[in-house]
Amino acid sequence: MKACIQKAKKSNVALATVRHSNHFGIAAYYSMLALKEDMIGISITNSQPLQAPTYGKSAILGTNPISVAAPSYKEYPYVLDMATSVVPIGKIKVYEKKGEKIPLGWGIDDNGEVTDDPKQVKSGGPGALMPLGSTDIMRGYKGYGLALLVEILCSTLSGASTLTEVGFPHEARESDVSHFFMAINISAFRPVIDFKKQLDHTISMLKASPKSEGQDRIYIAGEKEYEAYEYNTKKGVPIIDKVIEDLKRDGKRVGVPFDVEPVSVE
Amino acid sequence: MKACIQKAKKSNVALATVRHSNHFGIAAYYSMLALKEDMIGISITNSQPLQAPTYGKSAILGTNPISVAAPSYKEYPYVLDMATSVVPIGKIKVYEKKGEKIPLGWGIDDNGEVTDDPKQVKSGGPGALMPLGSTDIMRGYKGYGLALLVEILCSTLSGASTLTEVGFPHEARESDVSHFFMAINISAFRPVIDFKKQLDHTISMLKASPKSEGQDRIYIAGEKEYEAYEYNTKKGVPIIDKVIEDLKRDGKRVGVPFDVEPVSVE
Repeated sequence: MKACIQKAKKSNVALATVRHSNHFGIAAYYSMLALKEDMIGISITNSQPLQAPTYGKSAILGTNPISVAAPSYKEYPYVLDMATSVVPIGKIKVYEKKGEKIPLGWGIDDNGEVTDDPKQVKSGGPGALMPLGSTDIMRGYKGYGLALLVEILCSTLSGASTLTEVGFPHEARESDVSHFFMAINISAFRPVIDFKKQLDHTISMLKASPKSEGQDRIYIAGEKEYEAYEYNTKKGVPIIDKVIEDLKRDGKRVGVPFDVEPVSVE
Repeated sequence: MKACIQKAKKSNVALATVRHSNHFGIAAYYSMLALKEDMIGISITNSQPLQAPTYGKSAILGTNPISVAAPSYKEYPYVLDMATSVVPIGKIKVYEKKGEKIPLGWGIDDNGEVTDDPKQVKSGGPGALMPLGSTDIMRGYKGYGLALLVEILCSTLSGASTLTEVGFPHEARESDVSHFFMAINISAFRPVIDFKKQLDHTISMLKASPKSEGQDRIYIAGEKEYEAYEYNTKKGVPIIDKVIEDLKRDGKRVGVPFDVEPVSVE
């Protein structure tokens, strides 16, 4: 991403692919690097297979997230960071740890039927995450289409492994995850200040538009995360009890004591 | 799009925005121009306001479609062409014309509640199309985030009108729709034949993966449309009876007779 930004200073737009890589971390970390350079940043990656294609029942696609960041003036920047599945696997694991059922439409079981059992949603399936949109009638094939787009820009364009060939985290062999980055120099199109002020204006129009019954606020992509960042910086990071238990157990096993006293807030 | 393709032959990637435009037509028409040049084509546009943001009830965003085309070897090319709303407004109109209810999750009514009444889904709302993903729990905010991304790349980057300022088709004043195009020269990354053969391989893996109960085929974005194109070229274009009635009535009114005899097929 840094190479893209450097190149885009001269050429106004730059693209890069990365292959033979491993876990991406936070997609928005990379796209947001473009913000302070007054650029639009794009970062996407394929990943270990967790998501089924529409009409399929096996986890053959990654959750293949897309992140785009664009700078604003006084508002928070626009920061999209979304798995192309309805939810990422981590969300399913949170329900599993809590012993709760998942909402219908997030995942499918061994037969490809919608399930509320988080244990049915497995890496390498059958039993898998569903693509954004969920069922066919709700246009889940669009989420699947976006997941395949990510595969094309990352693995097909770079010549890396594709789909299940990318590898599973429990395998001994090296994984071959691939990424795609892009930086767009806004000043090639118009003065940066005009872009930023217009994005503020667009955000204001969205926020001022009429709310649904029972809602009092419309959010912009990234806004909740900026607020959570500010909250966590002041008050600490919320963790569910089951994760703390796991950390204590694993910490004891490897000789790293869990010596932070969790504080209940709100 | 043609200018992007010409420029990308030298610079390997080219972007263009268009402002003060009007109805886009078929988004994939533009992205697919890149296919025969061995490039990846991207075409997106904002549009008249029809879609509500998550927690909003007014149609303030366009259906803001995204199209991406990538060339394959023996398989059909990958051609994504998707509204960022669950469905485009045309789909709602088909249900309205047929006198049928729409599936729950496609649109909201004047209060922002999910509705099955196609008449409630209006241009300029309240009452609007829902973003891809639909409700909050099903991650409709991702579809909303993509719709806003389209707005940023089209109107913010070009300095065109944004959201409801774009104009409505029934208004006398000129509309100010804006577009974004991009062409990526595959040969800058790897030999084109290798890219095409790997995309075929990826498509084959998806198609060969296990099917859900009751399904016998997994599709790739654009495949159904290629097959429909071949069917329609041979057998003619299917039209519902109500549209034929409208064409006859309007034709009579403006002095253009509807003199094609519709043929029932399958």
